[in-house]
Amino acid sequence: MGLRIDVATLFPEMCEYYLSESIVGRARKKGLFEINCHQIREYTKDKHRRVDDTPYSERQGMLMQAEPIFCCYKAVEEMTGKKPYVIYMSPQGKTLTQKKCIELSKMDNIFILCGHYEGVDQRVIDKIVDEEISIGDYVLTGGELPALVLIDSVVRMIDGTLSRSDCYEDESHYSGLLEYPQFTRPEVWQDMTVPAVLLSGHHANIAKWRREQALITTLKKRPDLLLKAELDKKDEEFLKAWAKEEENKNYTDLVYSIFNNNK
Amino acid sequence: MGLRIDVATLFPEMCEYYLSESIVGRARKKGLFEINCHQIREYTKDKHRRVDDTPYSERQGMLMQAEPIFCCYKAVEEMTGKKPYVIYMSPQGKTLTQKKCIELSKMDNIFILCGHYEGVDQRVIDKIVDEEISIGDYVLTGGELPALVLIDSVVRMIDGTLSRSDCYEDESHYSGLLEYPQFTRPEVWQDMTVPAVLLSGHHANIAKWRREQALITTLKKRPDLLLKAELDKKDEEFLKAWAKEEENKNYTDLVYSIFNNNK
Repeated sequence: MGLRIDVATLFPEMCEYYLSESIVGRARKKGLFEINCHQIREYTKDKHRRVDDTPYSERQGMLMQAEPIFCCYKAVEEMTGKKPYVIYMSPQGKTLTQKKCIELSKMDNIFILCGHYEGVDQRVIDKIVDEEISIGDYVLTGGELPALVLIDSVVRMIDGTLSRSDCYEDESHYSGLLEYPQFTRPEVWQDMTVPAVLLSGHHANIAKWRREQALITTLKKRPDLLLKAELDKKDEEFLKAWAKEEENKNYTDLVYSIFNNNK
Repeated sequence: MGLRIDVATLFPEMCEYYLSESIVGRARKKGLFEINCHQIREYTKDKHRRVDDTPYSERQGMLMQAEPIFCCYKAVEEMTGKKPYVIYMSPQGKTLTQKKCIELSKMDNIFILCGHYEGVDQRVIDKIVDEEISIGDYVLTGGELPALVLIDSVVRMIDGTLSRSDCYEDESHYSGLLEYPQFTRPEVWQDMTVPAVLLSGHHANIAKWRREQALITTLKKRPDLLLKAELDKKDEEFLKAWAKEEENKNYTDLVYSIFNNNK
């Protein structure tokens, strides 16, 4: 049995809809992993199904109460007979990385808590949460999209989720460099032609062009990634020559600082 | 008339579903902004409605073709009579920040292109795209979730989207510090009590406690944010005293380096 993910949310239908579509939905139907979305409201004892209340000493805003979340968590624990790894999607969490996605894809049981309103009573976080994860430094209306982002990036790493044609090795953030530009038919579109080397059939030249284009793209768009990428002497020589030819002091300085930090 | 967002995607129903729900859906129904999701397939001239093809010189993978995307973009431009600001959701883009969300929320027309398969023919990117945006350093199965994340964070900043009770000032990534812990009823839950100061009714003490808790939380979880936050002499003294009391060399060093960089 593979990974089982349980999502605790106030919008289970919304999550369910995304998780039934596209690549994730297809892999889920194949049984490569299991996902269950739980309505937190079903775990409240309040007769109006309320799950939130005003925060102590706050003039406005609503906070999700500890008890319904805890009961939802307990129900899942009983169902599976295992303590799941509990993740709370929170702007306070560590920022998600590809490394973390790969790590989570190897787990057995993950329980994801989606906050809404202003947040969640701190006590249930202290009680059950193993890790807080943020998807980035921006504010969203709830934890559902972050949970879906997490799930998508995690289950994508499970063997079989991607078909051969989806599964591509030179992906951004995977080999450490951004991807080289890609082109498909037609050969000429709006007066723009596909680079001749790609039509040459000369494999060594194509590979060289791709590596160089990936280096240029990364230098221009995300130079920080070059600090961590595995670069060899040839890459260094190419980037130095390229930057010199561009006659752009910014690029020359960047290349210099990258190879003095890296080596 | 406020912001109009057009989304070009292979999964318009999926996007539409999320955008009709919750806070975003409510604000959209009120007419605070307009969102239209377009099926790129409707703009292909291929009789099988194909929009992708194999990349040049690649053994596997599929690439979205330039023409259907371009036609979709042109149709929107004609519809509105304006050149929209074109964003391509891409792992190669600049990482989204709250500052960028605020900036985008003040625009008139945004056109968001969601990639799928291995990516998009470079020529249509060069032709129409004004900015590439990434939501973080992890890989997803498509551009739809990133587009929804972008839309959610942008329309959230439009006046009236958040009701008074959603709208809370001390949000993470907004004031530059992470939020202090929050508590709601009951006063005692699972033997855990709400901090006494919050029940005291003493406003000055509560404000002081909150500032201090926000400082501690930020130091523990996201010390990098303290480098950019506005901190005064009182904050500095508090954090120094707190770190000393904790007898944790990591915290002492962190606080020292923050205030030596910041001032």
